[in-house]
Amino acid sequence: MAAEKNRQVLIVELPQGKLSEAHFKLVDGAVPEAKDGDVLVKTHYISLDAANRAWMQGATYRDAIESGQVMAGGAIAEVLSSKSDALKPGDLVFADTGWQEFAALPAKQCTKLPALEPMTHLLSVYGVAGLTAYFGLFEIGAPKEGETVVVSAAAGSVGSIVGQLAKIRGCRVVGIAGGREKCDWLVKELGFDAAIDYKNEPVHKALKEACPKGIDVYFDNVGGDILEACLFRMNLFGRIACCGAVSQYDGEAPAHGPRGIPGLIVTKRIKMQGFIVMDFNDKRDQALDDLQRWVGEGKIKVQEDIIEGLENTPRALIGLLAGENRGKRMVKVT
Amino acid sequence: MAAEKNRQVLIVELPQGKLSEAHFKLVDGAVPEAKDGDVLVKTHYISLDAANRAWMQGATYRDAIESGQVMAGGAIAEVLSSKSDALKPGDLVFADTGWQEFAALPAKQCTKLPALEPMTHLLSVYGVAGLTAYFGLFEIGAPKEGETVVVSAAAGSVGSIVGQLAKIRGCRVVGIAGGREKCDWLVKELGFDAAIDYKNEPVHKALKEACPKGIDVYFDNVGGDILEACLFRMNLFGRIACCGAVSQYDGEAPAHGPRGIPGLIVTKRIKMQGFIVMDFNDKRDQALDDLQRWVGEGKIKVQEDIIEGLENTPRALIGLLAGENRGKRMVKVT
Repeated sequence: MAAEKNRQVLIVELPQGKLSEAHFKLVDGAVPEAKDGDVLVKTHYISLDAANRAWMQGATYRDAIESGQVMAGGAIAEVLSSKSDALKPGDLVFADTGWQEFAALPAKQCTKLPALEPMTHLLSVYGVAGLTAYFGLFEIGAPKEGETVVVSAAAGSVGSIVGQLAKIRGCRVVGIAGGREKCDWLVKELGFDAAIDYKNEPVHKALKEACPKGIDVYFDNVGGDILEACLFRMNLFGRIACCGAVSQYDGEAPAHGPRGIPGLIVTKRIKMQGFIVMDFNDKRDQALDDLQRWVGEGKIKVQEDIIEGLENTPRALIGLLAGENRGKRMVKVT
Repeated sequence: MAAEKNRQVLIVELPQGKLSEAHFKLVDGAVPEAKDGDVLVKTHYISLDAANRAWMQGATYRDAIESGQVMAGGAIAEVLSSKSDALKPGDLVFADTGWQEFAALPAKQCTKLPALEPMTHLLSVYGVAGLTAYFGLFEIGAPKEGETVVVSAAAGSVGSIVGQLAKIRGCRVVGIAGGREKCDWLVKELGFDAAIDYKNEPVHKALKEACPKGIDVYFDNVGGDILEACLFRMNLFGRIACCGAVSQYDGEAPAHGPRGIPGLIVTKRIKMQGFIVMDFNDKRDQALDDLQRWVGEGKIKVQEDIIEGLENTPRALIGLLAGENRGKRMVKVT
């Protein structure tokens, strides 16, 4: 190996309240060696997601993150050397490399990626973000033409695609995002029918105006007060796709859940359902076909927010949790 | 008409907090006349349900109850005279007669009942209670053999049938009820595998012991703290059938919902879904066939709690909200 060191971002202490740069440390580690069945990979683009923060709260669909280790996170990486028949040098993979330049990991934990330009789309529209939007909206929300779809964190990586997919389905689409600028972008650039600036408008009232026929599908990325406000505006037999709870990740566990549960769930016969993208692995090919076609036809505009330098990864995540990104945020490592 | 007066229970004031007998008044009204398309019916058995109280809180799947009117409620009634081709004198129907001896109402708002002995089963196992248990468990909860099913208000009209249906399906069944006596009855008489006395045991801890493999289906009749405790014990891909929220009907609207929403819904991919029995009208015949067969085979034991006298209806409802009934509570009017 030419490289002699491996720059790594460690999580030195798990946050109790708000995450800060002090919870991380940049160190020079050794370039690891691949054992039998492993590959050695070089990290190109690290994906930043609200889920990174959720993993620090305890066990979710993956083990909890522990302090003292390399911070966990998915990335696009390139195989440098392989001790597995499944992958060969030069192959591009998606894997939980963690926040570091090099990683050695079992080949079976790597998903081989197609050669596709730009490579970054493999983290945004053709990656977890796009597939999460696709499956959450179509499989859980299942909107029909003419229905009203509301999505929160609408300017984020998942939300911005959810809204565009719902437009393709022929729905009225309302986004909830923080700040006038993001809201204008949703309406003017992405074709949303309306957008609510939750930082400057009372969401309850704004939903009433933006959704005169009520809400049929709510794609929830945030939980908390916004989930509650949407619950009270749901129509009979409405569906809530529970994708995340970003309002509740960066701090102590919330004291209570939203009002109206289970009362409104019963009287309006609402379905609330959680999901993660892996639940739909068997439908992945169809989803990618659809997404590629719609991107090609200009029906989905892909927004990416790329930050340079591994050393900026902690700041990039903290900023994402504060809602500073538009579209899919990632860090270009080299 | 032979009868000259019509004893009625009015709701004189809607409760703000706890419901009491002072909210009702027994009066002598006139026997109404049937208009074209109407039938005049005589009320035999009035159904008492937690839903009666929920209707006082505002619009649900039916209009809110208003003060000064005859208290609303479903009943088994007999047609005395008919101005509709759909029904004839002597027919037995289920209808929202309200709490009174006689009612005139459109024939199309009456569901004709089969002649069946005992007639009271038409309100319990073959009525809303039994069908609610059947559809909520099988259509929303969809338990598989060997899974763990938990039901709250387990000694009530719906809960006692839910548990027996889940046993028929081959599940481990845990009931939550108030008081040792009810809990013993669930296990010894109805065949539940375990029962938790929420008045005398910490539910969280008791669920851990009673559900060593976690909860796959929770049939929720109560909401509030018990829903919260079950949420934290749900398995991956668990289902919560939201049937009612009796813990929240008899008082002010609750300040908050259960913790863990939406966090646990996402990470465990839980489905929470509300329903009411009318949503499954198209599957009613199959349900009644199944229920009759199982009652005939002794696989479902039917428990009824019959109180005599229209004048006792308010007290009977207040007692039901306090959990004093076992099985289906109804009032025999005459």
